[in-house]
Formats: sequence, C-alpha cells, structure tokens
Amino acid sequence: MSQPAFDFDLVVLGGGSGGLAGAFRAAGHGARVALLEPGELGGTCVNVGCVPKKAMWLAAGLAGDVAVAAQLGFDVPDTPALDWPTLVAARQRYIHGIHDSYRRRLDEAGIVLVPSRGQLVDAHTVACEDGNRLRGRHLLLATGSRPRRLDVPGAGLAGVSDDFFAFHAPPGHVALVGGGYIAVELAGVLQALGCRVDVLARGERLLGQSDAELVERLQEDYRQQGIGLHLGRELAAIEGGPGALRLRDHAGEVSGTYAHVILAVGREPNTSGIGLERAGVELDRKGHVVVDAFQRSSVPHIAAVGDVTGRAMLTPVAISAARRAMDRVFGGRDDARLDYDDVPTVVFSHPPLAAVGLTEAQARERHGDAAVHVYRSLFRPMRQALVDRPRHSLFKLVCVGDERRVAGIHLLGEGADEILQGFAVALKRGITLDDLHDTVAIHPTSAEEVVLMR
Amino acid sequence: MSQPAFDFDLVVLGGGSGGLAGAFRAAGHGARVALLEPGELGGTCVNVGCVPKKAMWLAAGLAGDVAVAAQLGFDVPDTPALDWPTLVAARQRYIHGIHDSYRRRLDEAGIVLVPSRGQLVDAHTVACEDGNRLRGRHLLLATGSRPRRLDVPGAGLAGVSDDFFAFHAPPGHVALVGGGYIAVELAGVLQALGCRVDVLARGERLLGQSDAELVERLQEDYRQQGIGLHLGRELAAIEGGPGALRLRDHAGEVSGTYAHVILAVGREPNTSGIGLERAGVELDRKGHVVVDAFQRSSVPHIAAVGDVTGRAMLTPVAISAARRAMDRVFGGRDDARLDYDDVPTVVFSHPPLAAVGLTEAQARERHGDAAVHVYRSLFRPMRQALVDRPRHSLFKLVCVGDERRVAGIHLLGEGADEILQGFAVALKRGITLDDLHDTVAIHPTSAEEVVLMR
Repeated sequence: MSQPAFDFDLVVLGGGSGGLAGAFRAAGHGARVALLEPGELGGTCVNVGCVPKKAMWLAAGLAGDVAVAAQLGFDVPDTPALDWPTLVAARQRYIHGIHDSYRRRLDEAGIVLVPSRGQLVDAHTVACEDGNRLRGRHLLLATGSRPRRLDVPGAGLAGVSDDFFAFHAPPGHVALVGGGYIAVELAGVLQALGCRVDVLARGERLLGQSDAELVERLQEDYRQQGIGLHLGRELAAIEGGPGALRLRDHAGEVSGTYAHVILAVGREPNTSGIGLERAGVELDRKGHVVVDAFQRSSVPHIAAVGDVTGRAMLTPVAISAARRAMDRVFGGRDDARLDYDDVPTVVFSHPPLAAVGLTEAQARERHGDAAVHVYRSLFRPMRQALVDRPRHSLFKLVCVGDERRVAGIHLLGEGADEILQGFAVALKRGITLDDLHDTVAIHPTSAEEVVLMR
Repeated sequence: MSQPAFDFDLVVLGGGSGGLAGAFRAAGHGARVALLEPGELGGTCVNVGCVPKKAMWLAAGLAGDVAVAAQLGFDVPDTPALDWPTLVAARQRYIHGIHDSYRRRLDEAGIVLVPSRGQLVDAHTVACEDGNRLRGRHLLLATGSRPRRLDVPGAGLAGVSDDFFAFHAPPGHVALVGGGYIAVELAGVLQALGCRVDVLARGERLLGQSDAELVERLQEDYRQQGIGLHLGRELAAIEGGPGALRLRDHAGEVSGTYAHVILAVGREPNTSGIGLERAGVELDRKGHVVVDAFQRSSVPHIAAVGDVTGRAMLTPVAISAARRAMDRVFGGRDDARLDYDDVPTVVFSHPPLAAVGLTEAQARERHGDAAVHVYRSLFRPMRQALVDRPRHSLFKLVCVGDERRVAGIHLLGEGADEILQGFAVALKRGITLDDLHDTVAIHPTSAEEVVLMR
C-alpha cells in the first residue's frame, strides 16, 4: 500500500544549477517547493564540471605565471613542483563551501530538500527511495547528464571526466579521447601541471563548433606546449591493463603506453529510470526531454531545463531557462522564456577561447560570401612580449552587410574568458563595427584590440 | 638670413601617441607629413607612462600570483626576491621594440621624422633646431604634457613619475604625494614589489573622479596591503637631504624618513617655448590649447590633440581625436570628431578599478535621487576564494529611470581592466538593465557578475 503524498506547488528533480535556480525562483514567487537530489548539491557544474575545472585551470595558469615571473627576475623556479594534494584540498574546500551555501539558502527559502532519488509514478507524483511520495502541481526536470562511454573493446579500462577530478596525484602520461571542449580543457590543464598528454580525436580538427581559424592557432599552441594531437583517428579499442593502456584506432595503429585514458566523447541525459514514461513525457531519440520554447515538455505542467533537454549544455543556460520557466509558471509572466540565440561560451583552454554569435563559416553559409566581412587582430599581449614568448592572441570579428553588423566575436588569448561578456551584451543589442570604433580604447589591454580592428 | 622652407601638407609637433596617430592617418589619406620629435618616439605613454607602468603592474601582479601559487601547493616562496635590473631590462627591451616599430612604420608611410625641437615662427612655419624650416598647410600640435612640480620649500628634493621609471633597484621606503591615479598606481606597484609606501594626499579620499564607494573599498585594500594612507593633508615642505627626506604638512606635522619622495600632483601641458603666440594660437589660463569639438585651435588650420588640450588626458583619446581630425582635414569627412562622452578608464591599482559613465553621485546630481537605481555585486573571485583570501571584488551599476538605463559601470577587482571594454561599447550603445539580464552569463568568471546584478 502506498504512502500518502505530500503536496507541493513544485517538485524539482535534480539539485544541479538548473534545479536549484528553478527551486529558488519558484520559492521567491511564493511556491511551496520540494527538491530531490540524491548526491551533492550543485550537480555537474559544482562537483565535476565548471567549478573544479576552473580551479584546475587557474592552477595551471599559475604554473605559467610562475614561469613568466622567473623570466622577469623573480627568484622562483621556472617549472616549480606542485603538491597535488594541497591543490585538490583547496579545490574541494571551495566546493564544500558552495554546498554549505546552497544548503543554507535552501533552508532560508523554505525549500524542502529530499536527499533521495525519485521516480515519477504518474504525471504529478514522485516516489522517493524512502517510500515517501511527493505530489507537485508542477514538476521541473533537471537531472542533468553524465559522461558518455564508448562501446569499444576495453572501454571499461578508461575513465571519464569525473575521474579526472578524483586524481590526487599527477596522473602521468594521459590519453584523452575526444575533440570537444572537455578533452581540450583537460589536456591543457594536465600539460600545464606537468603531465604528458595525447589527444586522440575523430575529427580533423578540435572543437568542431568553434571558428576554424582560431582552432587552428590553438592547435599550434597546444603542439608547442608539447601536447600530442592525433586527429582524424577513431578509437577502436583500448588494450593493456591498469596503468599501462594502449589505444588502437580504426586503422589498426596502436599507440604508446598511457597511465590513464580518459574518454571525453560527449554526454548523455539522465532521463532513464525516473519514470518519465509513466508521466507521458516525450523524449527524443537521444533520450533528451523534448521541450518547447518555454521549457514545457509534452506534458504541459512538467518543465525541463539544462542538460536533460540537450540544448546548449551550459550552466548559465540551465539557470536562465529555469528562472524564466518559473517566472512563467509562478510569476505570472506568461511570455518569459530564454532566448537561446547568441549565447556566449568560453573554452577554458590554454589560452582560453571565447566566442559569441556566428563563426566565419556559419556567416558565409547564412549570408553569402559577398556579405561577410572579417576583421582580425593578431598580437602579443604585453605579458607575453615582456618575456619574449611567441604566444600570440588572435581576435576576430565576423561582420555582415554594408553596415558591418557584428554577427560573431571570436577571441583566443589571455583574458578572453573575461573580455567576452561585455561584448556579448553589445552583440546581442545589435552593434555595428562603427559602434566598436566609436568606443574609446582602454590602453594597454588585450580587450582594446576588439574596438580597434579595421 | 633664414633657410628656405620645406613644404608639407602637415607638420606634426610631437611624436607621442597622438602625434603619431595623426601623422599615420594623414599619410594614409595621401598627405605629405613631417613629424618633429626631439626625444624618443611614443611620448609619455610609451616611455614614462602607460607602457612601463603596465609592465611594472604586471610584474607586481606576478608577485601576487606567486604567493597564490605557494598557497595552492606549488614549491615557490611566498614572497620571492626580485632582481630589479632583470625586470627593468625586460621592460626597456619591450619599449625599444615599440620605438623600432614606430620608426619602421614611419618609414613605410613615407613620413619625414625630424629628431628636433620645433618652434612656430608664423602660423604655417616651424623652425627646427638645426636651422631647417618646415612649412605646413596644416599643423598638428601634440607635444603632450609633463609632471607638475609643487611650489613648496624642498620640492627640488622630490622626484616625479618620470623618476619612478629610472629606478633600477628597489627604492626602499617611498612617499607619494598626490591622490590621483598616478599616485595610486605607483603606490600599488611599489608595495607589491616589496617596498614600503606612504601616500600623502590633500583630498579626504583618493581618486576624486571615481565612484566613492569603490574608492573606499580600494583604500581598505591598500591599507590591508600595508600602504600608509595619509589623507586630507597638504604638503607644505620637503625637508632633509637625499635618501632621508621628511614631509611637513600644512598643520606642521612632520613625517618619518623616506628614501624617495615622488610628486604625483597632476600634469602640465607642453605649450610654452614653441612659438604658439606667434601663430596666434589661444591658450587657456592653465596653458592648454583651446580647441573646438573638431580639435581646431583658434587658428583653423592648426589642430591640437592629446594632453596639450587638457581634455581626458588618455592615450586612446589622443589617438582617436588625432585620427578623426586628420579624417576631417585630409579624408573629406567634415563631421569627423571624437565623442568625449562615456570614455572608459582604468586605474591600474591593485586590484584595478575600471569605470565608464556616471558615478552614483554624478547620476544623483544629474537625474535626482528618485530616478537613480544602484545595483551591486560584492564577491570573491574564485582565485581569491581558493586560497581563502579576503580580497573581494565590488562591481556596481548605476541605472537611471524606470527603464533602468545603464548610465555608469564601476568595477573594482581582478580582471576589471579587461572586463570593462565590451561593457563600455554596450553602455555607449544605450543599454538597459534588461539587456544585461538577457545576455547569458559566462560561468565561472568575474565578468558574469555584471549581467547577474539585480
């Protein structure tokens, strides 16, 4: 016999960034909210994604800073040893601080946190593992995604990005399988922190979504840093045993030996085993929840945000989508929805690659060659030039039409991660090249190059 | 008997940023150009301003980076020794590279570089020190400015910012006189590079032009870094002798002993002794060339740009103004002029302070308290939080009216120097708070805080 159900205005499945943002916003509108999260709060982003990745990226950047400092006369070793446990402890302490903060804020907002998995038993009712049943007038699906694994022999010998964050010591020679941003980011961090890295990717270039010209330069940078790039090669099998793994590709070529192999070949939505079929929630063939522009699933009172929807799998997208969905449901803003156009993104490579809007290729495809005007700035940031390093930044504008409307901004280089946000606001507002030129430069910075291109 | 004159379309006085930009732009329009510069090319910015300042600021930042690295587990000393000659040599090598580049570009552009002082003998003719005479259909005045000295007893014992750049060894305990951005920048650099610093300023706070709330926080930061701030005190005399100087203020209070005193009390235009009176060029009572919105002096074919005009004394302003003036004179663009509104600025303090548009006080003054809406984000950048440091960033939006038009953006914190440029473009384009919110955040960055404020 089933337990009686507790009634809520909203039941949220998943305590990642999207689920939390939705819960807080709904509670802010006066809704009674329950949030189910069997693991740590913060989901992928906080625990095995953006946050620890950025922490490692910052550390990797510091290794570079120390090398520059050595060249400029500071009495420090050029390539200092790193005590990984100290770094990992600092990173995890920071993450625990975020957990604490979330728990406190949930408490303050009066949101019921249920540390349990949940399964839909009908379109309004979630059964928890402890037998409790929660009934929601509305449901919000935000269970996120997990790293995809490959169906090749020996795949079980490899780790995924989650395992990267479990390293408490330098992992030695690592092979990364994949050419997307996760492989690129982990490769850059590991190499900068003193490991040896090879990347095996199916595509002929890394970062298929990014502007080809910037990627080409990044690949050069990576090669100069000592990262082995093996492109156009598909993994067929992983051979050997723990600590001594080899990759066999489709052409039968076998690699040297790696201490670890990490698969970074995409992510899969966490949409199975939670009873969505019992509620009649439609999934696409990859398992993503099908949503309309208002984040509504095929069941109107069940919304979904974030990675489960497969759209722009980025934390701030999940957060924005969740807030707007809850503004719509509980805040009386019937038209509230996230505009998925011109979402700025940053790949935390070394150096970082930041982009918003169309790549050159996309612009040519959409507007025709004659209408597309490209402007570039290739320069050495002062910090690189002071120590006479070869690393250049490449900034690029993709403009369209006689009025030179700025349709894409692509930045590869030191500081690109922080530079882009303001330009993304400007681009979304519909600027032209003249608007950039009419803004006085801030000298000497890297950012000024964006307003000085002609 | 005077030499025959060589004829040019344009004679430029001064080879700083503004003069060079004007010369290049005029030559680009086909003008025959002569440029007089008795010293190093690049003027204040390249030789004793922006460029070496930024180099020292970068080095000071590296000292902080090393300290963070030490805390995160890198085997480096917390406060590493610095070999000043190495740093200064790198800085000067970089500057020489800029000189070389300018000389090459002048050559390529066919601009005649005259390494000589010049004096106007009439409204079209410049007499060089070597006896040559250059006649210009148009003249461009861009002779820049120099540090002001104070008329107090012992002022000759003090140096100015130019002298800061002559240090080849740590200068020991330094007093900076002044509360403007130059004093603030030099104080931050010296303290970070291991010197002791006191600042004596007349005003009750530093940086009178900047938003008071951010300045208050910066002052706190400076005090925590160990910088002595002595505000509301006017210098009356400098006493003692070389290497052991004391400051006496108007109240008669006498300071401890300093190895160096640096005056940073503003700058004066280089407009005397160059024959402007013979051409009939009008100066204001501070000696600045009076110009109209098109950079025209009282003599229509004589333009002036940059510090000699006393308007927004910033390198990019001089460059933009010069280019537009030459577009007007030689490019047929009669309406070309620089818009001096909403010029973004960065104080390279530690951390940097970046601002565009109105301060909160200015907005209240102009629009009334009821129309002004202020939004703040006080946060710890991840890098600070990882090592549990107290340094917070304070970002602030000043919005006006029901539509929340963004009238001012003020950023104090790591990365502010690079973050502002894009937001300055957006602000000048006329954005509202909604435009910021409609742009998806880039996570995790400091810049995202600007679009997340509410």
